[in-house]
Formats: sequence, C-alpha cells, structure tokens
Amino acid sequence: MKTFENPSDIQALSRKWRKAGKTIGFVPTMGALHPGHLELVKASNRENDKTVVSIYVNPIQFGPQEDFHRYPRTLEADLDLLKGEKVGAVFTPNNRTMYPKGFATQVSVSGSLVANLCAPFRPGHFEGVATVVVKLVNAVEPTRLYLGQKDAQQAAILRQVLKDLDLGLETVICPIVRESDGFAMSSRNKNLSLEGRATAPVLYRALKVGKSIVDLGETDTDKVLEEIKKVIQDERSVKIQYLEAVDLDSLETLRKVKQGKTLIALAAHLDNVRLIDNIVV
Amino acid sequence: MKTFENPSDIQALSRKWRKAGKTIGFVPTMGALHPGHLELVKASNRENDKTVVSIYVNPIQFGPQEDFHRYPRTLEADLDLLKGEKVGAVFTPNNRTMYPKGFATQVSVSGSLVANLCAPFRPGHFEGVATVVVKLVNAVEPTRLYLGQKDAQQAAILRQVLKDLDLGLETVICPIVRESDGFAMSSRNKNLSLEGRATAPVLYRALKVGKSIVDLGETDTDKVLEEIKKVIQDERSVKIQYLEAVDLDSLETLRKVKQGKTLIALAAHLDNVRLIDNIVV
Repeated sequence: MKTFENPSDIQALSRKWRKAGKTIGFVPTMGALHPGHLELVKASNRENDKTVVSIYVNPIQFGPQEDFHRYPRTLEADLDLLKGEKVGAVFTPNNRTMYPKGFATQVSVSGSLVANLCAPFRPGHFEGVATVVVKLVNAVEPTRLYLGQKDAQQAAILRQVLKDLDLGLETVICPIVRESDGFAMSSRNKNLSLEGRATAPVLYRALKVGKSIVDLGETDTDKVLEEIKKVIQDERSVKIQYLEAVDLDSLETLRKVKQGKTLIALAAHLDNVRLIDNIVV
Repeated sequence: MKTFENPSDIQALSRKWRKAGKTIGFVPTMGALHPGHLELVKASNRENDKTVVSIYVNPIQFGPQEDFHRYPRTLEADLDLLKGEKVGAVFTPNNRTMYPKGFATQVSVSGSLVANLCAPFRPGHFEGVATVVVKLVNAVEPTRLYLGQKDAQQAAILRQVLKDLDLGLETVICPIVRESDGFAMSSRNKNLSLEGRATAPVLYRALKVGKSIVDLGETDTDKVLEEIKKVIQDERSVKIQYLEAVDLDSLETLRKVKQGKTLIALAAHLDNVRLIDNIVV
C-alpha cells in the first residue's frame, strides 16, 4: 500500500491504472478513520478494481473560529486500519502540495444547496470542501467517488459540483454508520467527554421519533420538527444549532413531507463539540 | 471530423484515445474562427496525436450590457475551415448540455490575477471563462490546452486555475496573430465599420512605440504608458478603457519595467466595438 504526497504522483499511478482498463474507487477523508470510513472503502472495493483513500485535514474548509487545530489527527492508526482493507494507494497531500504559493482558485456553489442547514453557520466551508474535492478528484481521476450520507449537505453539494463540472464520474452516497446505541460515527466524537458521549444518542433517538410520526401520517414538517426538538431539549446539555426539513436533492425547505425524499437534518453542540446527524423520511 | 454536443460523448471518445496511448491537444474557441485560431490548431497538431476544437459562445462570460447577442456566429464556415486542418473531433455543446436545470457551480479566482486590466470592467467575466473552461477541459481531458496570448489576462488566469485544480495538463500560450497592418486578429473585428477597421492598427502601432522606448532604456512604466497614450489619442474615434503595465505572470501593476516580463495591455472602444491588444517588453 503506497502513499503519495504529490497530486502529480497519484495522478501518474491512476492514469497507468486507467490505461490498463482498471476502474478506480476514491474515498476522500480527513483521517481519524472510523468504521464509517471503512464502509466507504469496502463499498469501493466491491465495485472497483482499485481503491484510493486520501487523508488530508483541509485548512480552507475550517472557519477562523472552528476546530482546525483540534481536529483529530491519527495518521499511523489510519494507515494501520487501511492495511486491513484492500487499498491500492493512499494519497496524503499536505498544505504545500495542495496550496502552493500563488494558489488563487475557488470552486463554489450558489442557490438552494447552500441556503440552509450548515451553510449559513459555516461561511466559506462548502467552498473549501468543493475546492479541495475537485482538486482531489482531478488528482485521483476515479471512476467512482464514495461519500457518506452523514454529511448530507456536503454529499448533495459535491454530487452537483462534480456533475456540473463534467468530471465524468459516479458519486456514490453510502448510509450513515452508527454505534450500537444509534450515535452516528464521526471523527469529532473523540472530542466528547464520557458524559457527553453518554448523552449524544439523544440526537438519533429524536430523529427516529420524527420518522415514527411521519410513518403514522403526519405531513406538516413544522409539527414533526417540534416533536424532535422536544426530545432533544430533555437533555439540557445539548444546544440545537439548526433542525430543518429539506428536499433530499435540492435542499430546499419543505413545509410538507415529501415521502422518501425529505431530509431531516440537525446540528447541535455538546461539550463544545459540534455534532450533525440526519434521517430521510 | 465528427462533432459532439454532449460532454459525456466527447469524453468517451477522449478516454478511448487516451487508453490507446494517444496525446490530445485541445483548442477551446467561441467560433467565428480566424487565422489566430488556426495557429492554435496547427500548434496542437504539431505536438499531439489528436486535436479537439470546441466551438461554444458561452453565455455566462458575457455581462448584461455586453455583446452576447451580436457576437459573430459562423458555425458552417468554422467547420469548413477546420476541415482544412487535421482535427480529430469538434465539440459543439449548447446551453442545454452545458448548463442544464439545477446547474449551481462557479469557478473563480481571487488576488492580483483579477485586480487589473479587463477584470474591473467586466465583473463576472473571468468567473464565466474559468467555469466553462474547467468544464470543457474535464469533458475533453486533453494532454495540452492551447490558448492565445491576445487574451493575455484570460491566459494567465486559466493557466493558474488549471494548475490550482490539479488538472494535470500543459497549458500552451501561442503568440498573437496579426493582420499585415499589425491589427490583432479577433472574432469581434467583424463588427467594425470600414473606417473603424482603417483606424484600428493605431493600437499596435502605439504598443510598438512603447516597446521602442523601453528598448531605448526607459524603465518608468508611467512614462512608457504616457507615450503610448499620446499615439492612440491622435485618433479621436478611439476611446481607451485601460492601458496598464503589469507583471506577465501575476498581473500585478509594475512601476518599473521588468525586462521580458512586462505585459503592456490595453482595451479601447472603436465603433462601439471593444478591442484589446498587448505586447510583452
């Protein structure tokens, strides 16, 4: 399992593979790998001849007040985990190879995809994500890209960006992987206290309450969100940042439930850690 | 010589060529082809196994007050001209295949590349250019991209964008092609009156005066620009929009001439047609 730091080096390998007729699956990550990431790798391995994983904590997607410096970095453990899977190459770029002097380009999206959910609370975040993923995808030149549904807005935005820019690849969105108590896996969970970790499953419990209400026939999203909110507010240490019902693809606000196409998504702070989760109803 | 309207179709052909080990040169144009374009095609043919030419008047690079609707469109004549060269494929996308419903992505640049010259006078223009060229390049997946030095700021911006986004191709900038009287060839020249056409060579005459002064030892760019301005102002029908001396690569304003690295560029209106020209000193 070789590692590469330069975009041009991983590109040379990828072009060699493609010339030999190999399909390539790509899993971009910021490291601190957990079973959610490994599910992406496994999906890629099932559907492609070669899998490339990137590990890079991308500075331009963090706001000045955000957790860039305390984002967990566990490269050795990450590489060990990947050795357990069939990974063709690991791309571990750094700020010097990604954003050399003179770098001046941004990829951004406009419209409903960035009107709701995380976007208003994280100015510049999705521009940073779109820019780095376009760079990573251009370097790796994959046949398929694997993203997690946990970052639902990121997945919707990237699917659109990669289609808009004619990258000619398939974007595969994989389901959220949860702990046995329902808590969605995330690299940031490491930053929770024991007490916070014990409280955190309330988010998914609440989302499931919302889903039950919809399954019982409620179509007014305000009412559904109100019930979810009540469950979360039972835990006073959890501060909701947003809780919204939007169209799964366009991310436009929904007043009425669209069966199977309604994304209920939330962000909340707990222990000063920002957590996100979502469910499709 | 086959023509393609869908990005995915030209991409399929290009990937077949690349898999067969062919190099691909790409010449993006807005049609209304003239000998300047053909020099780009010839350069591509010299250096690559296959050449792809695109013809597309990209709406998103025109401002609301600009000449999108009267930009010359001469597709049949263009295709005839290309038949005289060795062109592997012509990509003629349309607004439906380039910007389908839901399109939401922009590529933009920041910093000195968009601080001077055309950028302040054409808000959104270079964002439109960068976005369409990234799309075209992703569809064609060329080994080398051919651009004309006539659009000096466009060339500098695109070279940076394609490098920044790790497109893994070579950007080749070809010299300006001029009429026998020195007037720089451009598709927009067709919109000049006979009188305007007779006056237009003053732009290059003036730029050459600037170059002579530098060759004689002048290093103060203000003085050089002043002399150029005097020559142009002899023609009262020509209205200068800008006349600047900038670094050839970064496009930063230069107070002192940097030998061989100073771009003197101008835009001027004549007959309500906007003309640009430049010289490197």
